[in-house]
This record gives sequence, structure tokens and C-alpha cells, in this order.
Amino acid sequence: AADALGRVLAEAIVSTRTLPPADVSAMDGYALRAADAASARADAEVELAIAYEIAAGGGAPRALRPGEAARIFTGAPLPPGADAVVPQEEVSASAAAVRLRAPVAVGDSVRSAGEDVRVGDPVLAAGDVVGPAQLGMLAALGRSQVAVHRRPCVAILSGGDELVEPDGSIEGGRIVSSNSYTIAAQCREAGAEPTYLGIARDRPEALEALLRAGLHADVLVSSAGVSVGDHDYVRPVLEKLGCRLAFWGVHMKPGYPLVFGSFEPERGPLVFGLPGNPVSAMVTFELFVRPVLRKMSGRSAWFRPAVDAVLDEPLRKKPGRTHFVRVSLERRPDGFHARSTGNQSSGVLRSMVEAHGLLVFAAEASELAAGARVRVQVLDPALFEAAEPA
Amino acid sequence: AADALGRVLAEAIVSTRTLPPADVSAMDGYALRAADAASARADAEVELAIAYEIAAGGGAPRALRPGEAARIFTGAPLPPGADAVVPQEEVSASAAAVRLRAPVAVGDSVRSAGEDVRVGDPVLAAGDVVGPAQLGMLAALGRSQVAVHRRPCVAILSGGDELVEPDGSIEGGRIVSSNSYTIAAQCREAGAEPTYLGIARDRPEALEALLRAGLHADVLVSSAGVSVGDHDYVRPVLEKLGCRLAFWGVHMKPGYPLVFGSFEPERGPLVFGLPGNPVSAMVTFELFVRPVLRKMSGRSAWFRPAVDAVLDEPLRKKPGRTHFVRVSLERRPDGFHARSTGNQSSGVLRSMVEAHGLLVFAAEASELAAGARVRVQVLDPALFEAAEPA
Repeated sequence: AADALGRVLAEAIVSTRTLPPADVSAMDGYALRAADAASARADAEVELAIAYEIAAGGGAPRALRPGEAARIFTGAPLPPGADAVVPQEEVSASAAAVRLRAPVAVGDSVRSAGEDVRVGDPVLAAGDVVGPAQLGMLAALGRSQVAVHRRPCVAILSGGDELVEPDGSIEGGRIVSSNSYTIAAQCREAGAEPTYLGIARDRPEALEALLRAGLHADVLVSSAGVSVGDHDYVRPVLEKLGCRLAFWGVHMKPGYPLVFGSFEPERGPLVFGLPGNPVSAMVTFELFVRPVLRKMSGRSAWFRPAVDAVLDEPLRKKPGRTHFVRVSLERRPDGFHARSTGNQSSGVLRSMVEAHGLLVFAAEASELAAGARVRVQVLDPALFEAAEPA
Repeated sequence: AADALGRVLAEAIVSTRTLPPADVSAMDGYALRAADAASARADAEVELAIAYEIAAGGGAPRALRPGEAARIFTGAPLPPGADAVVPQEEVSASAAAVRLRAPVAVGDSVRSAGEDVRVGDPVLAAGDVVGPAQLGMLAALGRSQVAVHRRPCVAILSGGDELVEPDGSIEGGRIVSSNSYTIAAQCREAGAEPTYLGIARDRPEALEALLRAGLHADVLVSSAGVSVGDHDYVRPVLEKLGCRLAFWGVHMKPGYPLVFGSFEPERGPLVFGLPGNPVSAMVTFELFVRPVLRKMSGRSAWFRPAVDAVLDEPLRKKPGRTHFVRVSLERRPDGFHARSTGNQSSGVLRSMVEAHGLLVFAAEASELAAGARVRVQVLDPALFEAAEPA
């Protein structure tokens, strides 16, 4: 079950145990019958004989008789006959006897059987994410196996004659196919399992061969080389393989040339053709692919957290497309403040490196004034972490 | 470098490349000399001869001459002589010539060499957490190896004769040593590498043998069996091994019987002796061990995010200890609302399973009224995720 950390339960967990399994002591002290201590006062102490000690994990040798107490430790089962515990700090005791200065009520310092869970209690629900407490509960119930949603498999490929792997030569203006790295990392962070298929060279047969290798996956993500246009044969190759394209082109910036298609159910994956520019690829993954992967993973929250922020500088754009402006966020006493990460060209990966979030700049708007309230989708979960304790 | 996802950089990264490596086209269209298009108007089009096409990853066969244009695709290098690109949507063109309806400015639709980064630019700082964008940048720079802080090693053990592993028999009131599962999971979530040493039986030699096995670690975390008290020899055994105990007992609830000690530098780990009750173990890990692991991992944010919330029910306690009340949080239009997860006994793991956070109930306070503003440390990062897009 330890491997289930961070996964989503695919089954409801009903308790098969009662925990604690018996009435147990909540303190180190002395188990007794509350009735025996009823008259105890500071000036009229009650003395009880210590009959035995309850060893850890052990039981009582016999029932406690009236007038007797038993030495007991936190978590040990109450002996038959006892109905309360008095903490050791509240008594004076020798090896043979314990002296009480005050009465004790039935149930004092006792954790009742089933206080945590009882047989038949629903404990975890299908769809719950398994965190440390859930794992601990599964362990406590003896569940070493548990059904979880599988991680969606994502096949990743990039395409373009100008692309090389990170250790390749960049002579002649070649560039590294960095998109496959960002996309694989985005998959991992979304809880999916990426497989990298490689770089398809600019020939339809090369692209088709790689696409075929990805048809087993749940989701296929390609990122174009930066040189598409007339060279673009992604669409015909996808259609040849049986993929029905649902849309091509989204009125957003960055990321306009986004392609989405799908196969007949059970016949092939969902297909996302991301633009080749590094920022466009990352942003379209965020907005379109990540929620799909979260849904496939069984999660109910598919989207990033969003915060309201004060915009610290004016922004302008042409109306027509929704812009997703990469911004840094700073937490101040009056809330978050947002500022553009600089050059918003879709080739400037640095604008993503420095971004805490994406500011949504509405399609028909052309201006956001300094001081405007804006909505920012938070990409960097560390934004919420604190340098000081609460 | 892909393995660096989620790790903390131990070195600053300075760019060894200029990206883009040359002036490149930002669009599919035609490269030209802006001066040639200066007079173009809708009623006085300018025609330029198409001299050649720039292939993906290829170069120009020769410099562009006055009066010429070159077919070019997004990301391809501008030919010598060209200083602007006109997008294909804005012109009419045949295979031989392109006709312009409007002037073009120098630099239009061109991404300048070094627009993203230049040789010598500082790109990432030591201490930065490696996310997808950082990985993409490292790949783009050809860095397939990068120095990161190592994950702290945490050795985990539990102690108590009543404890069994999850697949063990619970006959006779034995209980599963679930703490080792929650603690290992908490270590993983904090970015540390847990090693499980096992259950020490209630004999000093057994405990000493396990503790010795953990002396190689950066941090040693033990959780007592629930039966300590007179059986407690953790302190003497630790001291025998050379551990100096710094404190024993913290005025908090849950978690009073927390122990912290350390060895001479380089001679042994930091040692946390957590209480045995499941909730006490989890909460003291959160408050004391997790920040240490975050610091050891090179992170600057050691603590959980905190939110302000409205308390939806009154809470009472005796003054004297700070209580960390397990609460569920609900986001409403006026902000977060907090409610206790029920029975706050430190044995009720369910109170943690259902908790989104820990409400800090100050030591000297005895009452929090319904409607009070409270501060909650958020344990469940999913709390911030959204069911709907921003």
C-alpha cells in the first residue's frame, strides 16, 4: 500500500477492524474501578492495592477485584473489572499500593474500543487521494493492497529537422527539442506516466512511424518543430491513421495552432498536437492536456488554483484572442501582486521559468490598467508555501 | 537532467548558448528587406520576386538582394540581407512572387538572436526548484547533468511489543505499526528518502541495535510504541550511543512527549523521538521534522501554507498547551470556513484522515467562539486546486 502514496483510490474502504480493538488506557497510570475512588479527597485519600501490571501487548492475568488497581501504560488494554484510569501524575504510589486524592469518573483516561473506527465504518471513499494519513489508516486496517486508478500513459513526440536531443550538436542553427522535456515533466507533475517516442524528421513516413508507436497510449502529445506551415503534414498523417480531428486552432495567445483529435473508443488515444514554440507548448499543455490527465487519474479537482491579484503595471494587447500572460506573483499585506515576466514572445521560455502563474487577459479586452484586479492561474504550488510558520 | 524534476538546484546556471541562435522568423511568411516594402499600399501593391525557400534547420543559399523575398517558416533563420518578415496571411503570393499591400517595419515578425537568453546570462539560481520550465531550459542549453541538493535520508523505526506489521496477526490486542507508514509517506512528501528499520521490541538491546542501524542517516525518527512509561528506555539508550538530548516534552497537544537530540557533527543524525499515538506522531512530524527536512533539501520555504478561516463552531480547551486542532476547511464566497474533524483524541487517526489543516489554538486561550477568525496550517495541498478553471 506504500506505493499508493499520491494515487487516487478506485475503491471505497470499509473498516474490517475495530480500533482501538479494546478499551485501552489513554495515559500511563493505574486502572481501577471508579466506584472504589468515589470518596477520595486530599484529606481522605483512598488506598488501592496494586494487583499486577499490564504488560505492553499483553493482557491481564485475571479480573480486577474491588479495592484493587493495576499498573497500566498508554495503549494497554483495561483489565476486566476496571472502568477508569488515573494518571500517574495525580497519585502517590509505591510498588504495592496507590493512594488517590480525588474521585475518578467512569471512563476517565480511557480510550473506548472503536473510538477511531469500528468494523463496517466507511473510512475512505473512492476518489480520495492517498496521503500519509490515508496510508496510515490502510496500514492500521491491515490493507497492504489497495485498488487505485492507474496513471494515464502519455506518448510524447516532437517533430522537425532542426531539432536535436540535449546532447546533440547545435551547429547550423539546430535547437534542442526541449519541449519533450517540459511535456514529460508536466505529465509527471499531473500524475501521468510519460513515454518519449523521439523526434520525427520532416517526412510523413517518419511521423507516421512514431505516431503508430504511440497509439497504445491513453494520450498522445506531439509538439511540432518550429518550422511547420507548408511542411505541415501532421493533419493528413493523423487522419490516415484514423484520428478524427475535433478542432484546429484556438483563439488564444500563446498557443493558437493547437490541434485536438481522437480515435474511435478503444482504437486509439486522445491526440493533442501542441504548437512548437516552447511557451505555446507548455501553456496549451496546462490548459488542455493537464485537466484531461487529472480526470483520467480519477481526480475531482482538474484545474490549477487561481488567485486574485493586483496588477502592478499596465498591459495592452489587440482584442480578438484570450492572452495567458506569464506573471510573477508577490504576496504583500494587501494580497497578491502580479507583474509580467517580461518579453511575452512565445519563444521566450524564460518567461515561463520566472512565472508563478498565468494571468487571464480576456479576448475582447485590449487594456488592463495598473492597479486592476486580475485573476491568475497558479502554476507554482510553492507559491503557497511559507518561509515562516503560521 | 530529467531526474532533477522537483529537486533543488545546488548550482547557478549561466547560459552557454544564445537562444534563438540567430534572428529567426516568428511567422510562416516571407522574409524581405523592409526598405523594399516602404511604398506598399492597398492601391499600390509592391511585388517582390521569391528568390528561394528557407528549409527547416537549413540556411539560405545566398544573401537576399534588393527586390527579392524568401519563403520562410516559423523558427527558420532570416537570410542575410533580410530584416523583416511579412506573414503569409497579409500578402497574395504565387510560387514566383509575393505582392505586399502595406509597408513592413524593420524587425516585424522577427525573433531576434538572444531574445530568450544570451551566452553569459544568469538563467537559474542555486536554490531554485526544478519544474517543467526549468527542465526545458536546461535541455535547451544542452545541460543533461545538473547539480542538485541530495534528498535527506531518514531512518525510521518504531518500538513496542504490541506492534505488528500490516500483514501480521492482531490477536490479543496487537495493533499495526501504522506510524512507520505515515512517517515514511510524510518523508516522501517532504522530499526526503525514508528507510524503514523495523519494530524494536521492548528490550534495550533490540532498540539499541535498530538505533545503531540508523546512525548513518541524516535524520533518525522513532515513534514509540503506545506503551512507554516505566518501559521507557529510549532516553538512556540514545544517551549511551552518544546522542545529546536537547529537549524532552513540548507544551502542545497532541504531541507532548516529543524528544529531540543530536550527535556531534558528522558523528550521527538528528534524532526525533515522536510520541506513539498516530495523531501525535503525524502532527509532531509536521511541526518539527518536516521543516528540518525542507531546510536540508535546500529549500527556502520550510513551512506549510496558512490560511485565515472563519471557525464554524465553538472550541474549548484547558489553558496551558497550544492545541493543534484537526479541521476540515471549506471554501465559501466569504473565504475559508473551518470545522473540527470530530474526536480530537490523539489516537483517532480518522481526525487526520479527514483534516485539511491544523488550527492553531493558542496555549493560554481556553475558548474560541463560533465565528472567530482563526489561522490554519494547510496540510492538504489539494485544497487549493479547483474544480473549475479560473
